[in-house]
Amino acid sequence: MVDILHRIGIKSSPDNVYRALTTIESLSGWWTDDTQGDGKIGGVIRFRFGAGGFDLAVLELDPAGRVLWEVVAGPEEWIGTRINWELRREDDYVIVLFKHAGWREPVEFMHHCSTKSAVFLLSLKPLLETGKGAPNPRDVKNDNWN
Amino acid sequence: MVDILHRIGIKSSPDNVYRALTTIESLSGWWTDDTQGDGKIGGVIRFRFGAGGFDLAVLELDPAGRVLWEVVAGPEEWIGTRINWELRREDDYVIVLFKHAGWREPVEFMHHCSTKSAVFLLSLKPLLETGKGAPNPRDVKNDNWN
Repeated sequence: MVDILHRIGIKSSPDNVYRALTTIESLSGWWTDDTQGDGKIGGVIRFRFGAGGFDLAVLELDPAGRVLWEVVAGPEEWIGTRINWELRREDDYVIVLFKHAGWREPVEFMHHCSTKSAVFLLSLKPLLETGKGAPNPRDVKNDNWN
Repeated sequence: MVDILHRIGIKSSPDNVYRALTTIESLSGWWTDDTQGDGKIGGVIRFRFGAGGFDLAVLELDPAGRVLWEVVAGPEEWIGTRINWELRREDDYVIVLFKHAGWREPVEFMHHCSTKSAVFLLSLKPLLETGKGAPNPRDVKNDNWN
């Protein structure tokens, strides 16, 4: 099992960061314009990017600093993988630890997704700090798989 | 063992991308202004970022598309880890696969380094496509460990 890991620090409040991970309006402000569904526990959030996309089931929500999703539809390599978020305050920052866990093999698509996750985390950060994220289709295109 | 993996695609020639990984002048154009040393096999390249930094020994160089470095000085978690680059042409792109392998544990510092690696890869890409990278100290600061 291999995981995609990332860390960002956002100059914002824990409440605002938590909201950005749990409401459709905020998710569409940093990940993809085309985000729909239900962000509550038991709900499913649908993220679409042009031709493709994926659906995430919300497994756990803790306003104290944890969000857990499971991929229930999307690329074959993603099915059954889980995306875990941990938040905590440190200095003037909310530290965000991101983990996309459960990949069966470190395939080339995983390399792409690792970089792309960083791209979107670096869109989440300015969304909360300046009010302006760069969700799909205005995201940074890291390679030819965009 | 856990690895940091990334994938970018650069609209450039394989020769230019290879040169950007193997010459001090080009490395300083996307990673850190303060890059010194010897990029040839057996040489050591020294990367400095304000207070800290690391030294990489050049283990393998293949102009057909492979570069391998080993960390010989720097953060304790990095010592003995290896950074592997593979390049190949695909469509109009040079595809770059990056792997920082040999981490003993998925510590929080590894999360930081994963995101930070993406930041620098997304500086390498515009350096070659537009002539302008964003090396340290003009790099994107992803968290409070910059």
